[in-house]
Amino acid sequence: MAVAEISVTPIGTGSPSVSREVACAVSVLRSEKRLKYELTSMGTIVEGDVKDILRVAGRMHQAVLDGGARRVLTNIKIDDRRDKPLTMRGKVESVKRKLET
Amino acid sequence: MAVAEISVTPIGTGSPSVSREVACAVSVLRSEKRLKYELTSMGTIVEGDVKDILRVAGRMHQAVLDGGARRVLTNIKIDDRRDKPLTMRGKVESVKRKLET
Amino acid sequence: MAVAEISVTPIGTGSPSVSREVACAVSVLRSEKRLKYELTSMGTIVEGDVKDILRVAGRMHQAVLDGGARRVLTNIKIDDRRDKPLTMRGKVESVKRKLET
Amino acid sequence: MAVAEISVTPIGTGSPSVSREVACAVSVLRSEKRLKYELTSMGTIVEGDVKDILRVAGRMHQAVLDGGARRVLTNIKIDDRRDKPLTMRGKVESVKRKLET
Repeated sequence: MAVAEISVTPIGTGSPSVSREVACAVSVLRSEKRLKYELTSMGTIVEGDVKDILRVAGRMHQAVLDGGARRVLTNIKIDDRRDKPLTMRGKVESVKRKLET
Repeated sequence: MAVAEISVTPIGTGSPSVSREVACAVSVLRSEKRLKYELTSMGTIVEGDVKDILRVAGRMHQAVLDGGARRVLTNIKIDDRRDKPLTMRGKVESVKRKLET
Repeated sequence: MAVAEISVTPIGTGSPSVSREVACAVSVLRSEKRLKYELTSMGTIVEGDVKDILRVAGRMHQAVLDGGARRVLTNIKIDDRRDKPLTMRGKVESVKRKLET
Repeated sequence: MAVAEISVTPIGTGSPSVSREVACAVSVLRSEKRLKYELTSMGTIVEGDVKDILRVAGRMHQAVLDGGARRVLTNIKIDDRRDKPLTMRGKVESVKRKLET
């Protein structure tokens, strides 16, 4: 299990607003039963298997191109740990515990 | 007003756990009264002026070096819009509205 | 054709040097006949089809885990343009031409 | 001495071409005597002091806004090592040596 962040940005659309295109990418995740996800103001965080994460990132990228964008910039950042399971919730709680002490 | 994501990662610490170092970086934000922030599982999202964001990213980076890391990798991603104010909350709400329609 | 940058970083290895692990990831590209690549000091730039780029990024990530790293951070940034072909060389030349004028 | 990669992308310009804006950001580096830099197809790599890198990233970001972009996305990735000097050339050579063996 890995945690990753995916962001897909259309370039040259003529409008500085990109929420329509971002929604288009995020909606791909609804049909992905094996990935948990969470929307943030800087990207979408997903939790699951690395193979699934890469496959879904490709689908999100393609969805924005299919939506009409002529150029798309996609960022994927994968955090993968093999000595113990990594979860979105566990990562935040671990930092919060250290902040309290 | 811009929204940015900052992540600071120590390299070569000998342990795959980095929560102590991340907490060290995040604690810098407590004394920054002009920046709002939010901890996520992939980084810290901040909202404020670009100058303040860059200055605080430098402080977070330095805090992890001061904490003993011999090598530090820092990622900063700034989203800055001039035609209307950008906020963490506004960005997420705008995508959610499009997802509902 | 897209241009992308891939970087794979081992976490918690005990040494601040990561060149052995980076070489391990980069060596994956030698057997990929459909992708051009170029090593830089901040990552590996690849040129090719998005599907191939995502597949090879997964292989590079896995190679560093197989090499013994307990935690791996992988960044993939894809620049994909559909109105005209995108190449590593063409992108740099286009900026250099503008710098000269 | 750190090595960093900076990329500045205009959003919503109406054209999928961004080389004019990228050249605008890169030209800022010409007057920065304390930073070495190198243009790649995915960003600009700079070598120097972290304080200078952050300051110049802010200037590059501002240059694209001043050039007329209504929204700008800036990525900064800093690799900073304290146990020995880090250079653009040294990093690439170190990986190449490992690839040869």
